[in-house]
Amino acid sequence: MESISAQQLWETNFPEFIKAGEAGLNSLMASAKLVELPAGQQVFYPGAACEQYLLVLKGSVKAQIISEGGREMLLYRVCSGESCVLTTSCLLSGDKYPAEGITEGEVMAFAISSHAFYRCMGRSAFFREFVFKKFSARLSGVIALLEDVTFNAIDTRLAKALLAEESDVILLTHQELATTLGSAREVISRHLKRFEAYGWVSLNSGTVNILNANALLNVATKQN
Amino acid sequence: MESISAQQLWETNFPEFIKAGEAGLNSLMASAKLVELPAGQQVFYPGAACEQYLLVLKGSVKAQIISEGGREMLLYRVCSGESCVLTTSCLLSGDKYPAEGITEGEVMAFAISSHAFYRCMGRSAFFREFVFKKFSARLSGVIALLEDVTFNAIDTRLAKALLAEESDVILLTHQELATTLGSAREVISRHLKRFEAYGWVSLNSGTVNILNANALLNVATKQN
Repeated sequence: MESISAQQLWETNFPEFIKAGEAGLNSLMASAKLVELPAGQQVFYPGAACEQYLLVLKGSVKAQIISEGGREMLLYRVCSGESCVLTTSCLLSGDKYPAEGITEGEVMAFAISSHAFYRCMGRSAFFREFVFKKFSARLSGVIALLEDVTFNAIDTRLAKALLAEESDVILLTHQELATTLGSAREVISRHLKRFEAYGWVSLNSGTVNILNANALLNVATKQN
Repeated sequence: MESISAQQLWETNFPEFIKAGEAGLNSLMASAKLVELPAGQQVFYPGAACEQYLLVLKGSVKAQIISEGGREMLLYRVCSGESCVLTTSCLLSGDKYPAEGITEGEVMAFAISSHAFYRCMGRSAFFREFVFKKFSARLSGVIALLEDVTFNAIDTRLAKALLAEESDVILLTHQELATTLGSAREVISRHLKRFEAYGWVSLNSGTVNILNANALLNVATKQN
């Protein structure tokens, strides 16, 4: 019964794995264990070794870095149909994790042992390409984030983050925005209050209402 | 005669390739072309496609990102015995380069066609591990840089950069330090002048002399 449901999960979430029809890949899929994790669970932390490759089926895992002073910054989210690049990196290099991963809501995933992962990397051209493509895309993402943090002032990045929500009513606290941007809550609050004084947004507890998206767009695209 | 010298270059710079003794790897080595590039040549730029894998034999290539306003930041240097992670990433994903690469001094490298690269990734466990390890190490490096830029104030990062030179006489201009840190020259000059006023460094054109390394170490390790 369980093997049927696992097969269905592969078909629904990773149909390209089934379609590839490679023997090496089939044995990887057969060896995968289904894991369910509660909300808010730490799945990896800085300095930990990595023992398995995860493919997320439901929910998401956020990977974030933390300063010595306790400030956080979101690196990326691993969502359904994705794998975690830091996990891949640690598996491949034998290095320890440089960041932490925490489940957001309940997460269901396939866990693949490092042994099965390595064997499949050697045997399946499809799997190598799958792993590499995810890896490359994330490296580009991290470089884009670095570019943003280095070259853009915090007001520019805050305006961009607000517009990225694609809604005029944004249900995020100042702390959540600070974590996304790797900034301190007080800094974000100060800028939001300035935006409010300019008439660009109105603030309620846990909500930011956008009143003038064009003005925010000007700030978001200003050259630094 | 040329093939003997290529063989010697492999032996000197990448002895582990010879030692691995894999057939798939030998054909990769045989297909590599020796290229020589002058100083200051752009080897890749943002938006360009990637067609070959480079293994640097002599000299170094700096990979840097550039803001719309023209500010630069050094991502990393590819030195002798190394490969460029962005090149690997672009080869593997088919994506365009997200940064630019420029030779520092004359550079000698082995250029390997994307075809030979792909074939060897499928055939050689040694080569896969080589490529992955370099890739993973660089991803960790980029995340560490992101952490530094996000969480550390510019004075902390400048003090760290000065101490990293491991000499009391540092032959770098304010612009070179600004590029390393992704900051503006004026910002770096202002902080260096402050360090000078405190008696921690003395400044001459193109040189920074460290007078009080302990004071700099205090700034370099302060929590943000």
